Amino acid sequence: MIDLSQATPAELRSMIRNNELIKPTAGMANGYAQANLAILKKEHAFDFLLFCQRNPKSCPLLDVTEIGSPIPAFAAKSGDIRTDIPKYRVYKYGELVEEVTDISNYWEDDMVGFLIGCSFTFEHALLNNDISIRHIEEGCNVPMYKTNIPCIEAGIFHGKMVASMRPIPQKDVVRAAQVTSRFPAVHGAPIHIGDPEAIGVSSIQHPDFGDPVTIREGEVPVFWACGVTPQSIAMETKPEIMITHAPGHMFITDIRDEKLGVL
Amino acid sequence: MIDLSQATPAELRSMIRNNELIKPTAGMANGYAQANLAILKKEHAFDFLLFCQRNPKSCPLLDVTEIGSPIPAFAAKSGDIRTDIPKYRVYKYGELVEEVTDISNYWEDDMVGFLIGCSFTFEHALLNNDISIRHIEEGCNVPMYKTNIPCIEAGIFHGKMVASMRPIPQKDVVRAAQVTSRFPAVHGAPIHIGDPEAIGVSSIQHPDFGDPVTIREGEVPVFWACGVTPQSIAMETKPEIMITHAPGHMFITDIRDEKLGVL
Repeated sequence: MIDLSQATPAELRSMIRNNELIKPTAGMANGYAQANLAILKKEHAFDFLLFCQRNPKSCPLLDVTEIGSPIPAFAAKSGDIRTDIPKYRVYKYGELVEEVTDISNYWEDDMVGFLIGCSFTFEHALLNNDISIRHIEEGCNVPMYKTNIPCIEAGIFHGKMVASMRPIPQKDVVRAAQVTSRFPAVHGAPIHIGDPEAIGVSSIQHPDFGDPVTIREGEVPVFWACGVTPQSIAMETKPEIMITHAPGHMFITDIRDEKLGVL
Repeated sequence: MIDLSQATPAELRSMIRNNELIKPTAGMANGYAQANLAILKKEHAFDFLLFCQRNPKSCPLLDVTEIGSPIPAFAAKSGDIRTDIPKYRVYKYGELVEEVTDISNYWEDDMVGFLIGCSFTFEHALLNNDISIRHIEEGCNVPMYKTNIPCIEAGIFHGKMVASMRPIPQKDVVRAAQVTSRFPAVHGAPIHIGDPEAIGVSSIQHPDFGDPVTIREGEVPVFWACGVTPQSIAMETKPEIMITHAPGHMFITDIRDEKLGVL
């Protein structure tokens, strides 16, 4: 049995392409960055690219494909965004219409793929600093919340930031901010430390996405901008078609985590 | 007589708008970021935005205006990119046709303005670290060179990186790399340290743009990606119309230099 944590990104993408690995990608190809995916048609690509440029904490771009090309040349030369994700979601006019393992049938010559940084990279950095991650300990999804923090509009795209939350012991909060600041391409520094209500989160035990986690005595809720933001916002605009990865089923890139560190 | 180094960005933009200040902006509004400008029509805006996203060292975007709007809402809410630069250059099909102090007559409803980070910010940071800047000492322009380093293509835009060079004493080279690494939005870390020929620069005393400067015994030529790159590359593609600032005549933003520091 192959150790998926030690497999190369290319090996894993090949298995995924052949439908031999239809499951969440957390823990696979340790040390390599994984990415969120959003595919839109060209008519919305400029607005969405501009939205990402204006909101780099929520939407840190790792790669954007050429119009009509499914190859993410910078993130994975041998990759194909139509086949190399274990599970996709197809949305039409903002409604989920299908989950599939291959989107070749949906691909059109005017489509553009956006690969957006994912928090796995900074979670590894936190773990390497002996800061544990509660949702990993508890074997569930990270809790995510709609905040009251407006994103900067771009063309048709507008809405509020979605943030993920990790409880951090008080003594480790400063270090957690330092460690994640090094990785702006995967959401970077926290967007808020402490009081959830200050950013419009009324019930920390009822996340809008993902699962609730335990917050222990002496721990502080720390919030980071979340890669669900662009999907959430794009859905609100109800484009004719938009294709994304299914939650947790990410694109595994050839980019080493450490190469995303700015210092 | 007003001290231009202590004037606010808004005061200076107003003077520039009224044609009371038609000169290079170096040394004005100390502590605030200045920006390179490129204006293109919408048909090329997606490709150019993608080019900037793929080449962040040469083309670090500070702001992109909405299609048809001359207001850089993020960089300067009260600014107007049609009037607030002391001198503009208008290019048609890659040829310089006019230098003007106001481009209102050229403005069209499908134009998009790109404000790109400028090295003034990281030069201040170097000076604050007691690392002197030779071209400032010698009262001339920074020397700039066409390198053999290819930019990553995007649509119609492709070509080589232009780099600026500053001679740095050997003992300060590491510190210079650290200090400028903090500012990715204004070109960031050096792209090369040492041998000019390694990046295709055959004669350090004959820059392609700007002026030659003295390199003293014990000093190392250090190269940074330069904001002239996008103009140089856009010129090669010969768009119907492109408007830029004239060299040294920058857009003065409301963004404090220090807020561009990533850590």
